[in-house]
Amino acid sequence: MKKPVVMVGAAFSLVGAVQAAPNTLEIFGTLDMAVTHLRTDGQSQTGLAHSGSNISRFGFRGREDLGSGYAAGFWLEGGLHPNLGKGAAEDGGLDFRRRATVSLFSPYGELRLGRDDSATFLSTLLFDPFMTNGVAGTNSFMMLGGPIQISNAISYFLPPNLGGFYGQLQYASGPTSTPSSGNYRGARFGYAQGALNVALAAGRQQDNVQPSLGLANLAATYDFGFIKPSLILAQEKRGSARIRAYQLGATAPIGPHLIRGSIGKYDVSGQQANADWIKYSVGYAYNFSKNTQIYASYAYVHNQSDSARAISVQGMDSPINSAGRNSQGYQFGIRKFF
Amino acid sequence: MKKPVVMVGAAFSLVGAVQAAPNTLEIFGTLDMAVTHLRTDGQSQTGLAHSGSNISRFGFRGREDLGSGYAAGFWLEGGLHPNLGKGAAEDGGLDFRRRATVSLFSPYGELRLGRDDSATFLSTLLFDPFMTNGVAGTNSFMMLGGPIQISNAISYFLPPNLGGFYGQLQYASGPTSTPSSGNYRGARFGYAQGALNVALAAGRQQDNVQPSLGLANLAATYDFGFIKPSLILAQEKRGSARIRAYQLGATAPIGPHLIRGSIGKYDVSGQQANADWIKYSVGYAYNFSKNTQIYASYAYVHNQSDSARAISVQGMDSPINSAGRNSQGYQFGIRKFF
Amino acid sequence: MKKPVVMVGAAFSLVGAVQAAPNTLEIFGTLDMAVTHLRTDGQSQTGLAHSGSNISRFGFRGREDLGSGYAAGFWLEGGLHPNLGKGAAEDGGLDFRRRATVSLFSPYGELRLGRDDSATFLSTLLFDPFMTNGVAGTNSFMMLGGPIQISNAISYFLPPNLGGFYGQLQYASGPTSTPSSGNYRGARFGYAQGALNVALAAGRQQDNVQPSLGLANLAATYDFGFIKPSLILAQEKRGSARIRAYQLGATAPIGPHLIRGSIGKYDVSGQQANADWIKYSVGYAYNFSKNTQIYASYAYVHNQSDSARAISVQGMDSPINSAGRNSQGYQFGIRKFF
Repeated sequence: MKKPVVMVGAAFSLVGAVQAAPNTLEIFGTLDMAVTHLRTDGQSQTGLAHSGSNISRFGFRGREDLGSGYAAGFWLEGGLHPNLGKGAAEDGGLDFRRRATVSLFSPYGELRLGRDDSATFLSTLLFDPFMTNGVAGTNSFMMLGGPIQISNAISYFLPPNLGGFYGQLQYASGPTSTPSSGNYRGARFGYAQGALNVALAAGRQQDNVQPSLGLANLAATYDFGFIKPSLILAQEKRGSARIRAYQLGATAPIGPHLIRGSIGKYDVSGQQANADWIKYSVGYAYNFSKNTQIYASYAYVHNQSDSARAISVQGMDSPINSAGRNSQGYQFGIRKFF
Repeated sequence: MKKPVVMVGAAFSLVGAVQAAPNTLEIFGTLDMAVTHLRTDGQSQTGLAHSGSNISRFGFRGREDLGSGYAAGFWLEGGLHPNLGKGAAEDGGLDFRRRATVSLFSPYGELRLGRDDSATFLSTLLFDPFMTNGVAGTNSFMMLGGPIQISNAISYFLPPNLGGFYGQLQYASGPTSTPSSGNYRGARFGYAQGALNVALAAGRQQDNVQPSLGLANLAATYDFGFIKPSLILAQEKRGSARIRAYQLGATAPIGPHLIRGSIGKYDVSGQQANADWIKYSVGYAYNFSKNTQIYASYAYVHNQSDSARAISVQGMDSPINSAGRNSQGYQFGIRKFF
Repeated sequence: MKKPVVMVGAAFSLVGAVQAAPNTLEIFGTLDMAVTHLRTDGQSQTGLAHSGSNISRFGFRGREDLGSGYAAGFWLEGGLHPNLGKGAAEDGGLDFRRRATVSLFSPYGELRLGRDDSATFLSTLLFDPFMTNGVAGTNSFMMLGGPIQISNAISYFLPPNLGGFYGQLQYASGPTSTPSSGNYRGARFGYAQGALNVALAAGRQQDNVQPSLGLANLAATYDFGFIKPSLILAQEKRGSARIRAYQLGATAPIGPHLIRGSIGKYDVSGQQANADWIKYSVGYAYNFSKNTQIYASYAYVHNQSDSARAISVQGMDSPINSAGRNSQGYQFGIRKFF
């Protein structure tokens, strides 16, 4: 039988002969699909959605050790809509709009060029017990058009080994963001030592809407071992319009079991008087292994009289809500890392 | 020289150190292109087409052993149009619309979520000597709009080791199929033991055309060693419109040589009286190895006075046919698995 | 910890157990991004561009030894726009329009089918010190619509080991080229022995513009060790319109340092009398390794009174030029092979 070999780039060798790993290429991804039921304003919808526990994605990344504390890295990662067999490009092709970066690491930090998570999105992702996903995920980002990923970004990251301090500065110009376009600058600083992790981020986006959008958030988590509570305080502000999110959450691992929950209050000021809403989320997950999970999640949104927020998921449309009416949803899913 | 290493996911190790293979990632695909000549109604067309012997495709799949007879799997696979350097998304990007699934295997069977082959398409694919491809492939599927792949599918497969019996149930809701959209439910059962393999499938598609589409097929093959004859009986029916396909075929391997042939009669009832057509197909292939083949195929379509069927291939347009006129075509190609 | 394994295709084995490599699969690519400044007709633009030193791309390729001097190969390669996280398909999906080919190698040469570099583009790519990329790249191709890659190509390449002689014949029919479509035929012959490499190419494209486009170029390089000068003479001609390029260049490696430069004169005849232009390019690169480079490039374009050529780069729009006005640009970038 013919025996195939996987090789990487122009320089390659049999893997078995390698002592260290100075030049790596990693293929990675997530497939997550869930039977999902949404009920909003008395209307309900049931079907297959995706990314209920972790975002479905696919990518390639690698790192090359250059010696003397220097290294080079690259990262290509795109979203998947697996229930339709599609990638995240507009007509369904695979793209790399979750991240496409090249990095130069030095003892003085990392210089990173390309499309990347925005500095102000990162904390809402990393400190939410549901990592922004599914019926239960936080809504403390993109509240008034804040960017998730931004294109054309030039970023500097502090080196590790600063006694727990970490941080980044980010600048992007030109057509840059989803959903908006324009210029973006942001910064994020944090401290992670022992059980504590706390991060502060702020940014400003100059897009095609006037005035510009200001973003800020503070997030923290403390790991007690049996439970890890988390806090997110986030604000987006454009002129007199402002939304503030206050979210308390917790994750509790018990062997292969994982229990998660959060309560988020979204305080909408500006032209709308009674447009606040509250989201309650709970979830259970069973981890067969580090890579394979089945999960169940439930969330409920309570709207004030001028708010019409509906629970939304990836890969399935939600019924349209009316002002003051509530929304709920649940999903049962399988999530596979590879 | 720098030595690269291929890694998979967050958990990785040098491949040489692995005893078993509990968590695999496989890259696979097919490139198949052929110089093709089509002659229909006196008009001819010559050029480069693709997928004359096997469908051109590209994908990633993997499986993780979870112990106690449980496992998790994923599969991402998209079509290629290699003569144009394109994928199968509408504007030519790579997508995964041939299959995008996540699976949980247990001793009681497989639960599979995502976009997948429809249960009613599978038998026409697997029991055709030409696997539906090229000038010579069967036309016993998609006769009245039956789905090839469907989105949003929830499928259950019987476990192996049921004494040769196999089967699946499939349900899909929402915008689901190519070319139609709607709800689909299907089932497929079969028996494969020794030289015999026989399968029965049926399904119904609720799409945007009334009335709904009913599908059924029965297929069998018996391997005599020097020759493997095959039979496909297939029907699609939508109200009074109905097409029935009757196809006899055979494959005969002689060392690295492969001879294939089929005769298919397509019986069109309903509004058209004399719209039947017959397709004759023959093919020869030389297998340099398990992965590399060169091939030649020829097919001839005889149309009744109200039928205008032309031979079609992937990647090259056929001349348009007129009612009652015949069509033929041949191709010489190279097919490479990887 | 679960240990993953990378496998290829249906036939696979642990890599460490392989003596020879009869069936390979290689993942390869380039990420190249650069902070870029362009100044044209008094207007300037600064931002992140890509592919300043090498084209950003991603692909898969492989080769299978069939014995007796025969082999099979495949190649899938697409462009990347990493500053936007996109591939090269129209809506940003990953495609394989840089190359999608299947090959059969024999002692008598290679038969290659699919989308590929055109024979007339290859020399302008390979003999330019900047490989056509970035502010400094040559403009001696696509001057009047000549193809870069062509679809539906059938190519024959001479075998290696002809005492330094190499060559190819290429024929494509149908919708074939970027940016034009139509039929293309081309040939390229060269001689590479010791320090000398010289190549001659010619072709003709029948596209949707009349009359057809004729292309020809002659290129040479001689490696003195400390410096490798290069010459490109190229012409594209469509009826009375004609552009001729004369370019002198050189690359000089000094350990990890690389100095490059070129001067190109573009002689435009036909309806425009004073439409010639001259491009001056210089560049410096530091190679951390074979795979990681940082670079800086500068170029200046001098236009005659009827020429309005602006320096263009990948991933960032240039200010629009006016007739007789000049253009310049520089970039600082990171290029990573993988």
